[in-house]
Amino acid sequence: MARINENYLKLKAGYLFPEISRRVRLFLEANPQAASNVIRCGIGDVTEPLPQAAIQAMKAATDELGERSSFRGYGPEQGYDFLRLAIAQHEYRERGLQISDDEVFVSDGSKCDTANILDIFGSDNRIAISDPVYPVYVDTNVMAGHTGQALEGGGYEGLLYLPCTPENGFIAAAPAEKVDIAYLCFPNNPTGAVASKAQLKAWVDYARANGTILFFDAAYVDYISDPALPRSIYEIEGARECAIEFRSFSKNGGFTGVRCAYTVVPAGLAGTTRGGEKVLLHPLWLRRSTTKFNGVSYPVQRAAQALYSAQGKAQVRALVDYYMGNAKILREAAREAGLKVWGGEHAPYIWIGCPAGLSSWDVFDKMLGEASVVITPGAGFGSNGEGFFRVSAFNSRQNAEEVAKRLKSMKWS
Amino acid sequence: MARINENYLKLKAGYLFPEISRRVRLFLEANPQAASNVIRCGIGDVTEPLPQAAIQAMKAATDELGERSSFRGYGPEQGYDFLRLAIAQHEYRERGLQISDDEVFVSDGSKCDTANILDIFGSDNRIAISDPVYPVYVDTNVMAGHTGQALEGGGYEGLLYLPCTPENGFIAAAPAEKVDIAYLCFPNNPTGAVASKAQLKAWVDYARANGTILFFDAAYVDYISDPALPRSIYEIEGARECAIEFRSFSKNGGFTGVRCAYTVVPAGLAGTTRGGEKVLLHPLWLRRSTTKFNGVSYPVQRAAQALYSAQGKAQVRALVDYYMGNAKILREAAREAGLKVWGGEHAPYIWIGCPAGLSSWDVFDKMLGEASVVITPGAGFGSNGEGFFRVSAFNSRQNAEEVAKRLKSMKWS
Repeated sequence: MARINENYLKLKAGYLFPEISRRVRLFLEANPQAASNVIRCGIGDVTEPLPQAAIQAMKAATDELGERSSFRGYGPEQGYDFLRLAIAQHEYRERGLQISDDEVFVSDGSKCDTANILDIFGSDNRIAISDPVYPVYVDTNVMAGHTGQALEGGGYEGLLYLPCTPENGFIAAAPAEKVDIAYLCFPNNPTGAVASKAQLKAWVDYARANGTILFFDAAYVDYISDPALPRSIYEIEGARECAIEFRSFSKNGGFTGVRCAYTVVPAGLAGTTRGGEKVLLHPLWLRRSTTKFNGVSYPVQRAAQALYSAQGKAQVRALVDYYMGNAKILREAAREAGLKVWGGEHAPYIWIGCPAGLSSWDVFDKMLGEASVVITPGAGFGSNGEGFFRVSAFNSRQNAEEVAKRLKSMKWS
Repeated sequence: MARINENYLKLKAGYLFPEISRRVRLFLEANPQAASNVIRCGIGDVTEPLPQAAIQAMKAATDELGERSSFRGYGPEQGYDFLRLAIAQHEYRERGLQISDDEVFVSDGSKCDTANILDIFGSDNRIAISDPVYPVYVDTNVMAGHTGQALEGGGYEGLLYLPCTPENGFIAAAPAEKVDIAYLCFPNNPTGAVASKAQLKAWVDYARANGTILFFDAAYVDYISDPALPRSIYEIEGARECAIEFRSFSKNGGFTGVRCAYTVVPAGLAGTTRGGEKVLLHPLWLRRSTTKFNGVSYPVQRAAQALYSAQGKAQVRALVDYYMGNAKILREAAREAGLKVWGGEHAPYIWIGCPAGLSSWDVFDKMLGEASVVITPGAGFGSNGEGFFRVSAFNSRQNAEEVAKRLKSMKWS
């Protein structure tokens, strides 16, 4: 009989977003008149139209496929040269960071990349993950057999959880013990926290001293509004020796439905065999990409390239500014309501403390029941997320203003 | 130190297509005047324009993303309902096969799917693979740690290779021993062989008797020209209990650069735990898809849907007929040249025996040197591919006719 991967059976059934959907459905069954009034600030999905630069490029590329002379079949699995160049040039080299075109791997999403990167690593690494955290980091390690069973209080045996709390500004320091792989995400989902250069330097120093590989997820990088804050892990000296960086067009170009992202694997970055021999990671990731992936849709790569035109850059900037305008409105409203607020300054997420006596699911039910607003309970991101909830700024201005009004009109204490 | 996945180090360096590229490059360096004369019949990539139905749908969907009212962000990871319905309806239910919409998982490619499906299976399965074979099946098992080291004569320890030879019409029978997973590909890449209902029934009966899961790769299904031949494994009674089917829009709709495919996982299909407990595969694959994938680009899914319109169906038929016209020309030319020929009747690949005394790389060098034609040496598909070479019919009619002429003008014996 074919045996299944039993690690999947360790996964907890009650995943966050299905549970949110279930509670919203029950609420609407009981309150059908509220349907048109519900505003969703739960899932972090963009709402505003795709930039026109991307649309024009995508349509033009589609037309190219309709002519024999300009038809393209299989592209390079790791992305077309034109897009790798645009990314390396505009995201890195123009900012003084030496990333070569062939260190950039174009993919169909950062979720896929942060999951698939585990393929090239062994099963005996000690792995550190912040808490709260984007659930995909944890679940993909469970699926890959890097953990034991689910624990009573949340989490899984075998992972090292790094608590992110108000005391450390939701930015975990490197642990005292040695780990082989550590996930960092700045600007952070869900807390909206962003690390300073000094904080990232401490992580890079730790990684170089311990042979740790850092998985640096910078999907929200364009939401950083202070130029003194680091946009890339490669701004830190030595990071090329210890870090892989993940970026996406989802949250800046509005590509959540279009699908394009990229991963940077520096040429000299290495792991080791059990025998202690160094092995470069770039050729392993290239082999993984060419064998298990067939590249991103050609018109989509042209659309991503167009985000780097002058017109495209301005349109991306306008999109990000729009969502950050929402974030400001929501952040201030929550403060005026007497709640404790973090994030929303360099990230599209506002992280709010639950009033005394209410759990994060209590706040979920209260917001839904009293204000018809869907938020994300912090407990869904890990046990240290309990006591907080996440409000997403991805919405229309009108909805953001309406949510702000409702937040302020609720009785919070 | 972070440990790498050492299984990657078992992979043989000299992969087929890079070696072909290297030899073509050397040839062109020595014969620069031949550059404009070289015709590539190597990689199985389509050459003709994308159907207009797909282009129109893709552009219209792109425009939808430019308006707030019709903008779409994240879609369902397993595919939009409209496409799952179109596939289930047109590919299966209209042909009398009961496949429900939610048994269809839309993806960005069959290469990805046949690779990723291994994620939901354990590491202790006995796996059967035909020889010659599409190299991705083998390499992804090596990467996943399902094999031992590479063997001297080709192949890897631990896999059960099923020889496909002229004696069995290049269709392996089920083995005498029990295996847990078996890969079947019909119409076959590289041999062009296609299995009869009786041959598939024998495989299904074997699978049901032994608890084997069949991975049925039907990427070339639309090249089957005899209605008596099975298009789907689900035409065989009992296949829903033992088979996963992979299909693609690459070779019928010309989507190799657009990227869309699908996998059918029947609801009742099960594997087992080490303890012998049955576990359904559908929820495992759904969990894998939702956790490690973020769905196919929305405009691409609309383009795939459009292939099922009346206009789209006619355009796909015309594309397939065009390539099959090439196949006929190439097949007949090879026969007239006195070569032994298989395939090319229900598949876009012609499989040709090497004349006595020539290895498949010898024929590669001869075709390139004497006729400036690039073919694929059979040895690249496994040790039983030695003695044969593959000619692809994916080309313009003009090129196919020219290759036919050159084939016939060469001295073969």
